This record gives sequence, C-alpha cells and structure tokens, in this order.
Amino acid sequence: MIRRRRATRPVRVGGLVIGGGAPVAVQSMTNTRTDDVAATVRQTRSLARAGCELVRIAVPDAAAAAALPEIRARLKLPLCADVHFDHRLALAAIRAGFDKVRINPGNIGAGARTGRARSARVCEVIRAAADAGTAIRVGVNAGSIDRRFARRPTVAAMVASMAECLAPFEALGFRALVLSAKASGVPETVAAYRELSRRWRWPLHLGLTEAGLPFEGAIRSTAALGALLAEGIGDTVRVSLTGDPVREVEAAWELLAALGLRRRGPLVYACPTCGRTGIDVARLAREVKRALAGCREPLKIAVMGCVVNGPGEARAADYGIAGGRGRGAVFARGRVLRTVPADRLVRELLRAIAAGQART
Amino acid sequence: MIRRRRATRPVRVGGLVIGGGAPVAVQSMTNTRTDDVAATVRQTRSLARAGCELVRIAVPDAAAAAALPEIRARLKLPLCADVHFDHRLALAAIRAGFDKVRINPGNIGAGARTGRARSARVCEVIRAAADAGTAIRVGVNAGSIDRRFARRPTVAAMVASMAECLAPFEALGFRALVLSAKASGVPETVAAYRELSRRWRWPLHLGLTEAGLPFEGAIRSTAALGALLAEGIGDTVRVSLTGDPVREVEAAWELLAALGLRRRGPLVYACPTCGRTGIDVARLAREVKRALAGCREPLKIAVMGCVVNGPGEARAADYGIAGGRGRGAVFARGRVLRTVPADRLVRELLRAIAAGQART
Repeated sequence: MIRRRRATRPVRVGGLVIGGGAPVAVQSMTNTRTDDVAATVRQTRSLARAGCELVRIAVPDAAAAAALPEIRARLKLPLCADVHFDHRLALAAIRAGFDKVRINPGNIGAGARTGRARSARVCEVIRAAADAGTAIRVGVNAGSIDRRFARRPTVAAMVASMAECLAPFEALGFRALVLSAKASGVPETVAAYRELSRRWRWPLHLGLTEAGLPFEGAIRSTAALGALLAEGIGDTVRVSLTGDPVREVEAAWELLAALGLRRRGPLVYACPTCGRTGIDVARLAREVKRALAGCREPLKIAVMGCVVNGPGEARAADYGIAGGRGRGAVFARGRVLRTVPADRLVRELLRAIAAGQART
Repeated sequence: MIRRRRATRPVRVGGLVIGGGAPVAVQSMTNTRTDDVAATVRQTRSLARAGCELVRIAVPDAAAAAALPEIRARLKLPLCADVHFDHRLALAAIRAGFDKVRINPGNIGAGARTGRARSARVCEVIRAAADAGTAIRVGVNAGSIDRRFARRPTVAAMVASMAECLAPFEALGFRALVLSAKASGVPETVAAYRELSRRWRWPLHLGLTEAGLPFEGAIRSTAALGALLAEGIGDTVRVSLTGDPVREVEAAWELLAALGLRRRGPLVYACPTCGRTGIDVARLAREVKRALAGCREPLKIAVMGCVVNGPGEARAADYGIAGGRGRGAVFARGRVLRTVPADRLVRELLRAIAAGQART
C-alpha cells in the first residue's frame, strides 16, 4: 500500500539525517517551562527513552533563551528550538548550539515596520544558521498565517506564505531546510503537504497543528499523516497530542510500524473480544505490554481470546496466546508450545520470548 | 483528499442501508456473554447511545442462539449475528429476526465431510435469509482461512476463499450481501479490500481482525480504514479495539469526521501544549468534552494554550478558548466574546455555546 518515498534532499540535524531517503524520523516537543532547565532536561530524556529522535523546545522569551545553553550542555540528542515573533530568540538558540531552529513565516520578525526589515531579520537568522551548521524548519501554521495572505483559501495562503519566506533562503543558498505546513483539519493538511511536495524538494516535517486528547488526537493525526506517508510524502513526523508528549512518540512509532515503514520494539496485537471470549484479553494485553516495555526486539505478539481467529493469528505472530475458557495455548513462531491454565499464560509467554530471544 | 465513493449495491439491514451511496455506517460488537441477555441488551444500548448503527453479537453455541429471540424482542436497532463453524446457529439467528448474519467462509459448515455438503449448508442459510429478508455478510479473516487456500499468500488466499464462498450466493441470486476481508496487518488489509472492491460491487464492511488496546488499536485501524475510505472504498466500518466496545464507536466517528465523511456531535480540538502554554489545556479539553457529551450539534471547538496559533485556530472553530497565563479569551464564530480568568474559561465557553445554539 505504500508508494515509493518522494525524493528529498538530506538535511543533517545533529547526528540525525532528515530526508534524502533516511528513515522517517520521530520527533516531539517538551511542554515543561523551558526556563525550568531540570524539568525540561528530564522530559527530554523521557522522550528519548520512548524513541524520540529530535526534541523541540519552545523559546517564547528571553528567560527561555537564557536557559538554552545549559539545556544543550546536559543533552546529547538533536534539539530544535521553536521560535515565533522575535528573530533574536532564534539567534540565541543557534549560539546555544541547538541543531535546528523552527521559525514561523506568519510571525517571524513581526515587529518589523516593513517587509524589507522583516526579510533582513530572517536573513540574519539564515546567515547565523549557515555559519553554525544549524538546520532551519520553516513551519507555516493555518492558525498563524501572515495577515497579508489571510484572505486566500487556507491551503493557498499557507503555500504562498511558504514561498515568500523561502525566497531569502534560496537567495543565500541555504541548504539545511525542512518545511512544514500544518492545519488542524485533515483534508487541508493533506492538501497543503501534497502541494509542498509538488513544489519543493526540501524534506517535509509532517504534523497537524493541534489534534486533541490522545485517543482522538491519534486518530486525527493518523488519518492525515498515514495518508501522506502512504503516498511517499514525509521525512519526519510529529504527532501532536494534548498531554504527556511521550504518548506522541508512542503514537508515531505505532503509525510507522502499522504502515510497515519502521519498527521499534514489540507490537502487541489483541483481539477486540466478543461473546466468544473466554479470557480477559485486555488485562493480558496490558500485562504483556508492561512486561515488554524495555524490549527493543521488533516482535509481533498476538493476544487472542477465542478459537476462531486465535490460533491462526497467534501462529502468524512471532509469539502468541490464544485462550479458551480457563485455559490457553502459547505459540512461538507458528507452533503450539504448551497449553496452560489462563493465569499462567502471560508468564509462559514471557518465558517463551526470553528463551527464543536467547537463542537468536 | 477523499476520492469519490466506489459504487456498490445498496443492502438493507433493518432500518439501515449499507452501500449504494448511503453514509458509511458505524458498527461495533458486544463482548458480553450472549446468553447473559440483560448484560448484552445493556451493552447494545450503550453502543447505540454512542452512535452505533448496527450491533453485532457473537453466537458461539446453542445457549447463545437460545438467547437471540429475547435479545431481539428487547432491542429495536439493527442486529447482526456473528456465526462460525455451525450453520445451524445462523439459521437460529435468522429465525430470531436478526437483520443480518455474518458467516466465515474459512469455517462455516466445517463439520461437513465434503465440499458439496458444506455448500449445501451454506445454501440452507442463504435460502432462509432470502425468505426472511435477512442480509448476510461473508467475512473472511486472515486468521481463519480455509485450509485448502492456506498455502497461498494471505491476500490471494482471502480473495480465493471469498470467491468460492460467493458462488452459491450468485447461483441463488441472493442480493443482500456485504463482504469483508480482514487481517491484523494494515498493508494486507488494504490490499485485500482493494481487490474485493475491484472484483465485486457488493458493499464492503471495513475492519482489522484485531488491532490492539484502544490507543494503538485506533492508530492501526485508522491507518488501514483511513487509507481505504480516502480511496472511496468502504460502506460500513468496525474499528476493533480491545476493551469496552463503546470506544470502537467513538473511534469510528472520530475517523469519519477527520476525513470529512460524516459528523456526529462536537469535535474538540486541543493544542499539544509546549513551553509556551499558560493554561492546563488537557484538563480544559477534558472538561469541555465531558460537558458536551450529550450534545449532538456538529460543532468544532478549539481549546488552545497560547498566543501563537491560539487566536487563529480558535477563530477558525465555531467556538474556542485561547489561554495566556492566568487568563484567556472565549471565541464564538470568529469573534472574541470576552476575556476572563482561566478558571472561568470553560463556564464562559459553555455559556457561549448554549446561547449560540439557542439562537440558531
């Protein structure tokens, strides 16, 4: 179902490459106060443990900018500074050694009196980034489009704002660009990225500006990002969810795995349960997930509640449980290992996985 | 982003029409013991309240079959019986007045000694359904493919099993057919449905055989069903999630709304929050959702945490909140209504919605 990835230029962001055929990178953003260095570093480390490959940190003001050098010093993974309005905050992030800076064409240099003055501010950021080897994401949002374009339909306005903002980058020959054009609606977002992909060869950062709480947010994000990734569009993803950003990273990996694009750790499949179910599938699935939280093997594990699809699906997985009333079978790579009482299923499954992994 | 829906034949299922250009129908399945009539009726009613338009109930044995007449008598909404192995359970569901029966070509009539005897059993079900005006879904699952096809690649095996099972339906001129071909993997499921859509004009019931716990299950389901719906494929959906099936209905509606295909009730968008956020967006979003749980108006509501995208997105929504530190603005249809302390934001938003709805 996945079309060949659209060719984009590779952009180096610290130790990470975005675009140019590199694996689709997973990113997220802290929601701590940036000037609370300890909290920001702690959350960034949680994100990295969950599989986040690039962490974005908002720089809303001078206090946040002042915290960047210490945050940088305490973290090795690629960091991006998120800057709106004031281009001096972008310059501070570049000086602090951030690997990437995100600016918003709808508001960067907003204090400037003229278009030329605004452009001069953007050029100052571009030159500083080029000198420091910092990447820049030009990120248009439907919710903050430059007023001069606001009368056009949303997608056209986003693309026009992008084109105008890119002019100085092109004039200065800047090569470490990543683009994004996010809206909260799925159809607009898909349309905007299709247009970016048609017009430019810079790698694309996919996302919705805002989705929602984790459950519906993951559905909306998957509807948009899944459609684009299936078309071969997108070099890095950020799933925006309200709440703990670790969920964003989990959602991104689940999406990439569902599409067969990337894998990280075990995937636990579980049947939806029905009037035929003889074991507590949800509880077993949660137990299996919890027990395997530290595992990095790309295993497929099936937790099935009945005899209809259970054995077949459990056989297709690397490991599986298929339970009947009170008892169940443990499968490993297509064979029934043993049949045990329901309360021993998870333990026996984990033993089988441990033994299998020890052998490989 | 959505292609025109593929033309399928309309099939009546009680008061519901599936296919033939009817809106994509939302369905789910009970996971109570079917012979526990009170629990099954209670859960079916919860599903209906959440927006489920067709409820499927497993009929694993004679005790479940014996409960069907009472379940039918107590419920008005369209009901489908899920039958595997024993065709007599399908006959019992038809006699009980169920609107639809689902059979699995991989195992229906599995006790028969010959292909002809198996086909005779399927014909008996078809004739009974035709006489009673009952629809039939022929539902192939990757986890329970007829052994005779099992050596082929999964998608080819599912389609071959489907083709063989459809022969008696075509021979008898049965017209109330719905097809499905589910796997747990997204790419196989998408490939199987594309092939069904290419070969037959019967309406298609979309789903994964099993996805997983609600969060990752919703992501996997959206990746598969979203891709198909965007291609115009699919007439009814069942999002399979492990746990309370009400979540399946919520997920299905969120997916249809995200794609712009159908709407039911308010959509609450919320920003992902970042170091710029001045209010507790997740808490506000949950409060707004809870307060509007009974609302059926197709409103778009934005709960935003800062001044970057907040005002723009809140303006694009029907109603919105955009909060700064300690205070926030309430928006209604593009205008700021008032600015209030953070702890009054939800109350003022709800007042604005109530007033707005009273006026329309």
